[in-house]
Amino acid sequence: MSLQGTYDPQNIFAQIIRGEAPCYKLYEDDDVLAFLDLFPQSYGHALVIPKNSPARNILEVDPDALAKVMRVVQRLTGVIVDELNPDGVQVAQFNGAPAGQTVFHIHVHIVPRYAGEGLGIHAANKADAGELEKLQARLVARLNG
Amino acid sequence: MSLQGTYDPQNIFAQIIRGEAPCYKLYEDDDVLAFLDLFPQSYGHALVIPKNSPARNILEVDPDALAKVMRVVQRLTGVIVDELNPDGVQVAQFNGAPAGQTVFHIHVHIVPRYAGEGLGIHAANKADAGELEKLQARLVARLNG
Repeated sequence: MSLQGTYDPQNIFAQIIRGEAPCYKLYEDDDVLAFLDLFPQSYGHALVIPKNSPARNILEVDPDALAKVMRVVQRLTGVIVDELNPDGVQVAQFNGAPAGQTVFHIHVHIVPRYAGEGLGIHAANKADAGELEKLQARLVARLNG
Repeated sequence: MSLQGTYDPQNIFAQIIRGEAPCYKLYEDDDVLAFLDLFPQSYGHALVIPKNSPARNILEVDPDALAKVMRVVQRLTGVIVDELNPDGVQVAQFNGAPAGQTVFHIHVHIVPRYAGEGLGIHAANKADAGELEKLQARLVARLNG
């Protein structure tokens, strides 16, 4: 899939937004949803998406929707740093399959980095459900704390 | 350098903002500056920074300054796609050395990706000045066109 194309309303993130598919939700408001990546590249890997801008990528997304997403990215990055104490954090947004995009609803990755630990390969290994639940509980408690 | 620390006003991007160091400028307004990366990971690798928020990373940056940066990131990504026709674009923002940050003034990378081409190693190979000048001219012309 290239940068050109049509938004597919059956993509998994659109299903999550509509409540048709589950997610390990971290945060939600009228405009933005944040949840854990099911195939984490590191411990604490989270995703933030706009709910009301059916855009495949940064070329298509409404600028105000992107601004709202970035507010949540900033806040959630702080929460992840406070709770998980990583040594660094990569914030990344991929456009097009050759750039690593695998779901064609715009999303921003928050990937904590730990010194001496490499990254898992994107979308390669599904995390254990129990581990994701524990992580979700920690981050939600910190976010609301 | 970890996520904790003090902003160093002598970092190279602060010098660029103050006009004390040169850059291949692509765009500037009262709040945001965009220029070519001197050590590009791919053809068209650009950086976007806030001018008035002396922040090392996303934890410290003023949210409104970040929003203004992202508006320019979005616009410049469109310009790069129109002019260079990459197959994908990675937008990335690194926090802390273990996440790949090498200059400790917050910046957003725009890295075009071309099918079949890997990425250069970050901050490893300085680009040819003549090539950067040509690229700058193409992108500025497209931005203003």
